[in-house]
Amino acid sequence: MKMANPPQVLRGMRDFLPDRMILRHHVIGIFRSVFERYGFEPLDTPAIEYAETLEGKYGEEADKLIYKFEDRGGRQVGLRYDLTVPLARVVALYPDLPKPFKRYQIAPVWRAERPQKGRYREFWQCDVDTVGSSSMLADAEILAVLHDSLTALGFTQFVIRINNRKLLKGLSTFAGVPEGEEANVLRSVDKLDKIGEVGVRTELLEKGFDEEVVARLFRLLEPGDDTSDLIARLRVQLAESPDAQEGLAELEQLREYLANLGVRESCYRFDLSMVRGLDYYTGPIFETVVEEPRIGSITGGGRYDHLVGIFSGRDIPAVGSTLGLERIVDVMEALHLFPETKTLTQVLVAAFDAETIPEALRLATELRRAGTRVEVPLMEKGGFRKFLSYANAKGVPTVVLLGPDEIARGEVTVRNMADGSQESVPRAEAVARLSGQRAQ
Amino acid sequence: MKMANPPQVLRGMRDFLPDRMILRHHVIGIFRSVFERYGFEPLDTPAIEYAETLEGKYGEEADKLIYKFEDRGGRQVGLRYDLTVPLARVVALYPDLPKPFKRYQIAPVWRAERPQKGRYREFWQCDVDTVGSSSMLADAEILAVLHDSLTALGFTQFVIRINNRKLLKGLSTFAGVPEGEEANVLRSVDKLDKIGEVGVRTELLEKGFDEEVVARLFRLLEPGDDTSDLIARLRVQLAESPDAQEGLAELEQLREYLANLGVRESCYRFDLSMVRGLDYYTGPIFETVVEEPRIGSITGGGRYDHLVGIFSGRDIPAVGSTLGLERIVDVMEALHLFPETKTLTQVLVAAFDAETIPEALRLATELRRAGTRVEVPLMEKGGFRKFLSYANAKGVPTVVLLGPDEIARGEVTVRNMADGSQESVPRAEAVARLSGQRAQ
Repeated sequence: MKMANPPQVLRGMRDFLPDRMILRHHVIGIFRSVFERYGFEPLDTPAIEYAETLEGKYGEEADKLIYKFEDRGGRQVGLRYDLTVPLARVVALYPDLPKPFKRYQIAPVWRAERPQKGRYREFWQCDVDTVGSSSMLADAEILAVLHDSLTALGFTQFVIRINNRKLLKGLSTFAGVPEGEEANVLRSVDKLDKIGEVGVRTELLEKGFDEEVVARLFRLLEPGDDTSDLIARLRVQLAESPDAQEGLAELEQLREYLANLGVRESCYRFDLSMVRGLDYYTGPIFETVVEEPRIGSITGGGRYDHLVGIFSGRDIPAVGSTLGLERIVDVMEALHLFPETKTLTQVLVAAFDAETIPEALRLATELRRAGTRVEVPLMEKGGFRKFLSYANAKGVPTVVLLGPDEIARGEVTVRNMADGSQESVPRAEAVARLSGQRAQ
Repeated sequence: MKMANPPQVLRGMRDFLPDRMILRHHVIGIFRSVFERYGFEPLDTPAIEYAETLEGKYGEEADKLIYKFEDRGGRQVGLRYDLTVPLARVVALYPDLPKPFKRYQIAPVWRAERPQKGRYREFWQCDVDTVGSSSMLADAEILAVLHDSLTALGFTQFVIRINNRKLLKGLSTFAGVPEGEEANVLRSVDKLDKIGEVGVRTELLEKGFDEEVVARLFRLLEPGDDTSDLIARLRVQLAESPDAQEGLAELEQLREYLANLGVRESCYRFDLSMVRGLDYYTGPIFETVVEEPRIGSITGGGRYDHLVGIFSGRDIPAVGSTLGLERIVDVMEALHLFPETKTLTQVLVAAFDAETIPEALRLATELRRAGTRVEVPLMEKGGFRKFLSYANAKGVPTVVLLGPDEIARGEVTVRNMADGSQESVPRAEAVARLSGQRAQ
């Protein structure tokens, strides 16, 4: 057997060692508990699907990124590209699922992207979606889930940018954009953040749009400091566009629900220039940005009433969002939102020698039964010095030293690894003290 | 686009709908908390590895089961077949990981098996392993983890069968099995459960083993009711086999550690006839069986001192076990060890009409902040009757009805879905009551 030594991980894919996995579990745990508090329930689907199921959903460019192969049975199969197509398949395959069907799925997806900083070939998506409701309440709930999730993670400064595809459509039609050219215009508007108003104007003119149309568009896109003023102005300016009026009504309804759901106003903003790349959105769209560090959006979603029904042969309303696990972990690290832990282990119970191991194991067992995360050194030849250096390397905060003298005195020595201080604790009080419970 | 209508799941793969996922999450949550209490920490690795990394580890038969394909870059890659080879790669790739390296990994693996009842092409493994310790303490810890995990899941009747490969080797050599034929003999012995002693004797004779050798083998294999007696007898019978003596010493050491770790004696048994199929074990081996339902082993593992070092160019001691998530869920369902829940949602807060929605949302928000899992109906057109039938279909245990009369009286109506009883509760007490907190 010829073997690269040692074998590598494929480019664009990653191992998550324990220190990194602890952060990911922390984030996923909070996501799950928030999702579940809103009645979203877990779903899982196979990593491998028929290629036919995956292809043709997001255009040719996306199809090229699907990992495809022929299995032993000669079937064309592929690794899932996202979690939305599997959701659409599930909705079609189990028509008896009670509707609205509210599910979350937290799982890896695979894309044969060119690997680059922050872009991976295997990455996790955390998707939360409601299928089968056209009520703005469903949209508001998704926004509340985003708000609560980020708040629970410790984010204090984030803004969920909200816009509406119906409003954008009405707005571009009203500005005089020719039928069928709206998407083309919006793709340029989407770059406002990156290239500024002058850049977008230039691009639109280069694309051949009328100077008058572009000017009218920008009069409508004028941002308002205050959401109510913005909506009121557009109500008047776009009075004759039914699409725009419908979009505005949805935004107003959303706003009322968000207030009732306890979403702080400082955490979201109606942003006319936020377009989102994908074509399949049909109503409200939303994405979350943080000011620091500048990393792009950390959530993205919206209402997409035509996609989930693709296998069911009819439109099924749906709304949802992805939370970007990778970026959120990166931002939280940059903002120091994680506790300073490299390990989950709380206590290392170190026995002096083979004679004291049984007592160390008994103490460890009592601590574990009290819910404490405990390690016992497994080195063949130990010695306290070696155990302390192991605890140090792993970042275990507390070490209990158990020598024959301590045992004879009915005590244990507790060492705080942060400052090196030690104290003697009566064995009878050790479990209560170390497990963080109050002694009797 | 031509499309099967609706698209199916590939054979041997499964969707896990919420009712099923809730059970899996319940089991995985308990596994994780037990693993972490013993100092095992999470690891994750990519689903896709270089084919070279995966192949040649478990023989040709296994290699045929690997999902292999060529990626866009022309690389031969494959989906992971198990979690042990990725562990070996991680150990080789990050030589600075503190040792012993104690990790768990809970993740799907893929095998192109012929699908049949209980055998899947995508299934989850829950692996817990210690790398870098030859101490029997490491083996004892794995056994204690199995014991605590199954106990925490509610299993009352399970037996971890324990044996030792060194003992088995010494035993077969001593019985007169020719050098190099031990594995062949043990494969037959492994069938004792299925075909009985007569069956195994016949098979061994058919394989051409000497009648005398077979007779001697069975005198040694004689089960003992009592572990101490069994060990004492073998100590004498196999006095001249260093391998057997080493294996027996390991078993005795294990036993002492298990007692110190609080593992009940009724939960494990030394079983000379338990062999385990795989060739790579080198010391203690263990698997767990339940009497009811008869489903085969629900855990399997042991010490394997030559496998993890395969990419590191040297032997690295290791011991660990897999817990079979699929079978454990099946057994728990058969034994009714799961709570009777189809949903995680605890309360449905139903508004009578559009006017009462804001108050319903406010109550739901307060309940969620108190940690309760709450749904608000998202149907466009509702009515209490429809909401009740939705709650019924989903299995939500409690429904709160909020009509204009209730709101005017400062009350809410709480309906117990199990028996249909209803009562009025003052709004001010509703959150404390429904979130299970004691009212002030």
